[in-house]
Amino acid sequence: MNVRESILLALKDRPGDWVSGEALALSLNVSRTAIWKHIKALIADGYAVDSSKKGYRLSAPADLLSPGEICPGLATNIFGRKHYLYYREIDSTNNQARRLASKGYPEGTVVVAEMQTAGRGRRGRTWYSPNGQGIYMSVILRPMLPLKEISRVSILTAVAITETFATELDLQARIKWPNDIFINGRKIAGILSEAVTDMDSIEYIVVGIGLNINNKFREFPDDFRTAATSVLAEHELPGSRVKLLQTLLLNLERHYQALLAGQFASTLEQARTLSMVIGQEVRLDTINGFIVGRAFDIDDNGYLLIRDQQGEIHTVLSGEISVLSSTISKENTLR
Amino acid sequence: MNVRESILLALKDRPGDWVSGEALALSLNVSRTAIWKHIKALIADGYAVDSSKKGYRLSAPADLLSPGEICPGLATNIFGRKHYLYYREIDSTNNQARRLASKGYPEGTVVVAEMQTAGRGRRGRTWYSPNGQGIYMSVILRPMLPLKEISRVSILTAVAITETFATELDLQARIKWPNDIFINGRKIAGILSEAVTDMDSIEYIVVGIGLNINNKFREFPDDFRTAATSVLAEHELPGSRVKLLQTLLLNLERHYQALLAGQFASTLEQARTLSMVIGQEVRLDTINGFIVGRAFDIDDNGYLLIRDQQGEIHTVLSGEISVLSSTISKENTLR
Repeated sequence: MNVRESILLALKDRPGDWVSGEALALSLNVSRTAIWKHIKALIADGYAVDSSKKGYRLSAPADLLSPGEICPGLATNIFGRKHYLYYREIDSTNNQARRLASKGYPEGTVVVAEMQTAGRGRRGRTWYSPNGQGIYMSVILRPMLPLKEISRVSILTAVAITETFATELDLQARIKWPNDIFINGRKIAGILSEAVTDMDSIEYIVVGIGLNINNKFREFPDDFRTAATSVLAEHELPGSRVKLLQTLLLNLERHYQALLAGQFASTLEQARTLSMVIGQEVRLDTINGFIVGRAFDIDDNGYLLIRDQQGEIHTVLSGEISVLSSTISKENTLR
Repeated sequence: MNVRESILLALKDRPGDWVSGEALALSLNVSRTAIWKHIKALIADGYAVDSSKKGYRLSAPADLLSPGEICPGLATNIFGRKHYLYYREIDSTNNQARRLASKGYPEGTVVVAEMQTAGRGRRGRTWYSPNGQGIYMSVILRPMLPLKEISRVSILTAVAITETFATELDLQARIKWPNDIFINGRKIAGILSEAVTDMDSIEYIVVGIGLNINNKFREFPDDFRTAATSVLAEHELPGSRVKLLQTLLLNLERHYQALLAGQFASTLEQARTLSMVIGQEVRLDTINGFIVGRAFDIDDNGYLLIRDQQGEIHTVLSGEISVLSSTISKENTLR
């Protein structure tokens, strides 16, 4: 634990009480000026720290994804260990991670923000990212994978998210291939994977994750409100963002390391089981047009297999899936 | 023609002669200070301009890829029209084009350098880029293409390069799928395509091209010297870099616009005809290992089809091809 984390812990141990700067300096063996610098950094990170002649105190409980909250309890080996970059506000964690990756930041660099001013989803959509209501996070990966296996990274990310919801909150989420996580028919999380490649190999992938946690949907646009849900809406208690993010990073790292070790099979099997599109009649929209058919499997590379009405099999890397089955059965019922 | 191009033309019209600054200012209807600023810019671009009381003169013929040389005779509609960025020296034109693309520079932006200090080829290799001896160029593309069709861009680039050699220099080059151009068994040009993608679509591709023109191979490392060739080595006359680049940009644009218009078939047919691997026994090395077999076609998406010794067909996006046929026939002859 570094000096800043120790100061934070001392303040948290005595919520609402004053902790003298002199006592902190003595016990941590640093100058009082150093203590004051760390206090200023904690305030910049979003902590409500009062200061007076009596010392310092936390005037409000912190619910932050700052390094001081996340790093001490983080059980990963690589993800977020060396570089955990935290922002009160950023345009988009994916943008920032891409900027860092192009400067050479290594695999496992994690970018987290309390708020995104230009949060992005797939296909140029906005990802609503109000202050403190979600988890907005990106990880830099530099896998030695051929380009055709790139979808595996989205697949394992989706599995890691659903596992996290299951173990931390007892929420059964499902994967809408390739990049969305649903609970009770509404979107609770999304993935935006962006890659730089020279065709032979992948220079880096930035995997962006947005989780809806304590969203105040009243503030959201209508179409978003009816299509989305959050941990708060599905669960009695608002989720602890800190524990969720720590577990998510751990699950992500575990599945990613399995992939690199050539052990993707069990992740893929989970993805098949958790899929909400396999076995369904679907419509797939891509840049090139659309296909209607039955989604019947996800292959080893993470591609969706769809058999169209002419019996032709399409191996699909990406696209926008709409599940048609429920609509069809509803129409049947009405007849 | 802008003021700078007009000044350059006036100097070129009278090689070795002094052109008065006052006369230039009068004829172009600008101040003498403006003339002097443009002269300084021309010197920065690499022109050998003398100045004296008598005026200005070109003291040496220019062989530069500067805007003043390239743009007046450039017949493209988009490529290099709005943004033609020229550098005496840069780390790598692909690096610079990627930096510009991430800042939003549009499709058709062209980056050209006289010299690269960190010129790159595929698979992390160096591309030797000595001052003025080659063409080092990158174009930003923003095609509405699904990721699986991305190889088409490398294919059309290879075709555009071979066409340029054929029409400008009467040199018959062949394509070593996917990214190299050979003449008489030696490499004369290479392509490095780098893409940013979110799986659904391509945000941008930077297509980098390196052509060996007037290379002094004595200065090159041994292994490079035996494997590479140049226009100068294959042709009686050293190539005019200006005309070559102008024609290359025009050919590139034509094939690219055909691709976007859904007319890739004839480009692909050219690529098949020009291929030096179709019909050959090859070894393909990829991140995942290697395949030995017969390369028998390039499919619609630009993937190489290889039938291995067990009769299995591999559809290959990328990798390093070695042609084995000549070795085999040699061995047969020796037996």
